[in-house]
Amino acid sequence: MTTPPNLSQRASDLYKSIQTHICANLESLEPTARFKSDEWERPDAKGGHGGGGLTRILSGGTVFEKAGVNFSAVRGTMPAAFAAKLGGPSEDVPFFATGVSLVIHPYSPMIPTTHANWRYLELGNACWLGGGSDLTPYYLYEEDAVHFHSVLKGVCDKHSPEYYPRFKKACDEYFYLPHRKETRGIGGIFYDYLGRDEKVDLEATLKFSHDLGFAFTEQYLPIVERRKGTPYTEKEKGFQLLRRGRYVEFNLLYDRGTHFGLQTGGRIESILMSLPPIVHWDYCPTVEEGSREELLIQTLMNPREWVK
Amino acid sequence: MTTPPNLSQRASDLYKSIQTHICANLESLEPTARFKSDEWERPDAKGGHGGGGLTRILSGGTVFEKAGVNFSAVRGTMPAAFAAKLGGPSEDVPFFATGVSLVIHPYSPMIPTTHANWRYLELGNACWLGGGSDLTPYYLYEEDAVHFHSVLKGVCDKHSPEYYPRFKKACDEYFYLPHRKETRGIGGIFYDYLGRDEKVDLEATLKFSHDLGFAFTEQYLPIVERRKGTPYTEKEKGFQLLRRGRYVEFNLLYDRGTHFGLQTGGRIESILMSLPPIVHWDYCPTVEEGSREELLIQTLMNPREWVK
Repeated sequence: MTTPPNLSQRASDLYKSIQTHICANLESLEPTARFKSDEWERPDAKGGHGGGGLTRILSGGTVFEKAGVNFSAVRGTMPAAFAAKLGGPSEDVPFFATGVSLVIHPYSPMIPTTHANWRYLELGNACWLGGGSDLTPYYLYEEDAVHFHSVLKGVCDKHSPEYYPRFKKACDEYFYLPHRKETRGIGGIFYDYLGRDEKVDLEATLKFSHDLGFAFTEQYLPIVERRKGTPYTEKEKGFQLLRRGRYVEFNLLYDRGTHFGLQTGGRIESILMSLPPIVHWDYCPTVEEGSREELLIQTLMNPREWVK
Repeated sequence: MTTPPNLSQRASDLYKSIQTHICANLESLEPTARFKSDEWERPDAKGGHGGGGLTRILSGGTVFEKAGVNFSAVRGTMPAAFAAKLGGPSEDVPFFATGVSLVIHPYSPMIPTTHANWRYLELGNACWLGGGSDLTPYYLYEEDAVHFHSVLKGVCDKHSPEYYPRFKKACDEYFYLPHRKETRGIGGIFYDYLGRDEKVDLEATLKFSHDLGFAFTEQYLPIVERRKGTPYTEKEKGFQLLRRGRYVEFNLLYDRGTHFGLQTGGRIESILMSLPPIVHWDYCPTVEEGSREELLIQTLMNPREWVK
């Protein structure tokens, strides 16, 4: 299959416009807090130009404790060991990667954390797209989980009836903490290598990125609106802080995106902006039988189908 | 070289007695808080007996926010990939590991965090000892760093004049966060594979473990005594919480001990007891030029020789 013209440039432009769209919509829920922007450049290993990005962070809002939306378009040489992991050759190989990645940590434990990422990658002669979005509630509202998944399924179905069930399953498998025997959250979709190994049109795949990126606010913001006025106790906030520890464990122990960034000389503060602002670890925390806390954990240990 | 009789049992007994000694001495600094004990067993992969341990945790003291001292003696089968990393054969191989491991997180940012571990390992036909201890200050007091290293050097010198310089260097190299270009703290000593590849007597190496284990309280507690009354500000506490984030990053991204535990089916709560109780991550935190915070970071970026 031949690569459509200007794909890397068009992908990069798309991700930048998704970033702008999402930040503007998140700001609309904040009376005064606004995103700050950090434009950065990335020197490559030989001191040349390795691309760069734009990191946008909103912290200390009334709803959002920390929301980070990062755009990047970087090129360089990927170390052999890591290239092999991605299915590339076992040698140092040139790469280009562009994408937008976001993590939103609200104050209220009644509002779920969310993460999303859409990206385009060139590794040697191969190129593909990947991405997804997922939801990490602290207190489970089934209608929120159903809403999040329904919007995703709607977008997927327009592209292929196979996408949603396949990518939903991949998401549950990817965001899994084997040492905890739990998923990180109640899932969403996750896809990778789309357009590389299969007879999938790269152009259509870029359009899939587009549709998902612009549907994201519709997926998440109605949930925020619905839960932002819900009162919560100190104890419930404490449970959120403990659960955030699992988020950190996943991101540092297992997340390929984090490891990719750190091993290819990415910008540390942009990679680790995914980490929650305040996190607790207790030794052997317990939850009451039949409590909402226990229900959440049970749900994470037994992934469900949220939409048919 | 032949293995001395009963080495595994005597190592295990030694580590247990070191645990008892250290816990009693830490408690002597706490008016009322006491260690709680969790005895646990570890089923092996086939459901048989895989050993166990005793985890002791003191939390919410007046000096110590969280102190964990874990003893374990476990046996099982190490996955091929991990065995190869440890220099073993590239196949599943039986192992036995016993040791004591501790991490102490004080409330006050003026008192450093410390970590220590001494262990004995059998992997297939090979056996060796490893261990070390290191100090992670938030505000640097040079005399504390000198004291900690002096005690270590004293113990090392009794065994071999080569030990301290070699193991001090190994410690700086091991506790290094490449993505931050910093060491985790101001070091200590770190040794591994002692008695395996070299003409080192295993019996003498066990004695080295013994001497280090029983010198630990002398290394650390005078520092706690000296700093526990030092007043500190909210801002200084905040700096400690941010620096604890680096501690988490090291332990989850790089620490071999953590990965060993997670990959060999260790007890999760005992492995992750090393994580600090409360941790902050800010995006792009800054420190003032010439401040004590900057001095600390500079020191971590340029490891020093603390004793001659």
